[in-house]
Amino acid sequence: MRKIKELGEFGLIHHLSSRLKFRASDSILGIGDDCAVYPVKPGMNEVISTDALVENIHFKLSTTTPEALGRKALSVSLSDIAAMGGTPKRILVTLGLPERISVSFLDKLYSGFNEICNQYKVELAGGDTVSSPKCFFINVAVIGEAKRVFTRKGAKPGDLIFVTGTLGDSSLGLKLLDKKKKGGKDNKLLIERHLNPTARVQEAGILARSSINITSMIDISDGLVQDLYHICKASKVGARIFQDKLPHSPEFARTCDKDSIPPLPLLLNGGEDYELLFTLPADGVKNLNRQFLKAKVLVTQVGEITLKPRKVSLAMRDGTTETLSESEGFNHF
Amino acid sequence: MRKIKELGEFGLIHHLSSRLKFRASDSILGIGDDCAVYPVKPGMNEVISTDALVENIHFKLSTTTPEALGRKALSVSLSDIAAMGGTPKRILVTLGLPERISVSFLDKLYSGFNEICNQYKVELAGGDTVSSPKCFFINVAVIGEAKRVFTRKGAKPGDLIFVTGTLGDSSLGLKLLDKKKKGGKDNKLLIERHLNPTARVQEAGILARSSINITSMIDISDGLVQDLYHICKASKVGARIFQDKLPHSPEFARTCDKDSIPPLPLLLNGGEDYELLFTLPADGVKNLNRQFLKAKVLVTQVGEITLKPRKVSLAMRDGTTETLSESEGFNHF
Repeated sequence: MRKIKELGEFGLIHHLSSRLKFRASDSILGIGDDCAVYPVKPGMNEVISTDALVENIHFKLSTTTPEALGRKALSVSLSDIAAMGGTPKRILVTLGLPERISVSFLDKLYSGFNEICNQYKVELAGGDTVSSPKCFFINVAVIGEAKRVFTRKGAKPGDLIFVTGTLGDSSLGLKLLDKKKKGGKDNKLLIERHLNPTARVQEAGILARSSINITSMIDISDGLVQDLYHICKASKVGARIFQDKLPHSPEFARTCDKDSIPPLPLLLNGGEDYELLFTLPADGVKNLNRQFLKAKVLVTQVGEITLKPRKVSLAMRDGTTETLSESEGFNHF
Repeated sequence: MRKIKELGEFGLIHHLSSRLKFRASDSILGIGDDCAVYPVKPGMNEVISTDALVENIHFKLSTTTPEALGRKALSVSLSDIAAMGGTPKRILVTLGLPERISVSFLDKLYSGFNEICNQYKVELAGGDTVSSPKCFFINVAVIGEAKRVFTRKGAKPGDLIFVTGTLGDSSLGLKLLDKKKKGGKDNKLLIERHLNPTARVQEAGILARSSINITSMIDISDGLVQDLYHICKASKVGARIFQDKLPHSPEFARTCDKDSIPPLPLLLNGGEDYELLFTLPADGVKNLNRQFLKAKVLVTQVGEITLKPRKVSLAMRDGTTETLSESEGFNHF
């Protein structure tokens, strides 16, 4: 019996999707990116995606609140729409509910949903609630709109690589949660970044409305290196990133220092930051920086696209270069 | 602790959706029908829905094949689109996978997906596969298009009530499966009707393209009576159905007879037939019958809409009338 583990998540998706023969004549992009893309009217595309969270795999009820879980379940899905340069419009939520989940828990979960829906002006348009005695799960399907669509495919050698926000906060926050180190302002912020990530919808909107030639984009859910590999594979290019340029928060730096945690693995491979990772030719950088400065949101150049296909390397502070392995990011199986 | 069971599925949906404050300005129909509805361009609406199937709640691996499960998981969702008079276009599939599910099982499941996608010209556009150690689940989100949208709301006293196909086959098939009575041509057909239901997309298309004034529509997933109650509540009317008019297959009649199974409870409350239940004024009946005859598909008048709100009654063969209870259909919790 061939096990799913042997194929891995992406191998499995590739394996299974090859069995599907029907493709809509108007389909722009099917399986394999953050969203599927379809034209709905001239100049406007629909972007659609779905994500599931399973208890004790993607969240633990002992370390989160129902409100935070509700917020995160939606934010993670909205991030997929942002990753395509889209604006989320509506969602469908499925709840698989064991008997132990109470109505008051669901009330709080929905308060979390409601917060995110209000914040992003997204309508929870429907869903399904089913009995699921052995596990609690949440599935979110999200539909968004995009005039311009940014995919993983299109990065060119010489393009520069950017990320929004900071890296590693979420995975460090998870470490602190697991160690029950919840005290102190820094720890609290890092844990909050893990439990309550921000979908970069605003940043995606800036890029989409600008004239900047974004050649590829993805959201960082599996870690910088693994998600950069997704871009490199789809674009048939390589990438070089610079240790010195990886953006991190002061809280991250202080906590790594205090607890003697090596920061680099978290910056490179820590998952669930939900920052945007994107590429553009050098002549767009001025415009990019101006727009992000104006909106008061952070963006940092972390590297450049290279010719060598499917190779991501790290230029270290000491002048040496190291090839980074794809497999060290978060594996879902 | 208030339990979900106390509210029931529909009470829960009502309770939770009242907490959601954001409504899109262009939203035509939100939570509470088979699908949510949005305009995408002049004269065209989008209809969206989602459905989850959980192992040992909605299916058992001991009584179905992976291919049939794949077909049914999609058909059930396509039926929601049909219920609104829509044409399904694309789906997103989430799989929650325990380790015991093998790649070859998934290959067969996808063969089932592929069959339905080809049959209905629906594209499986994306999805999510997640590890779910304790339970196997499938979530399907489906997006369709509809020029005319048929909702549950709009039935008027005096309208006539119709169903497509036959009733009770699926629930009788399930009974036979549970009793392991798989032999014989009749049993095989009934079991097949349970494991491999047909989404009435063709019939919905006939209605949508016709000029018939369909005043309300739903698909029968929870049983004729319960789904008729959904129409009555949304439309603020009542209904009378006639025992003698309830359509059943010859296989159903023979098997009930042979096994001494009372047919009426199955016809009234048996779930998962996925037939369409709809209403129209009497002056549309000729046109309706002509169109369905031409397409060689079955449609039967089973009753009429009455003034008395929220009361569904059954005119019995012996001339008496009985009020039918809403709660006898399939309850999801």
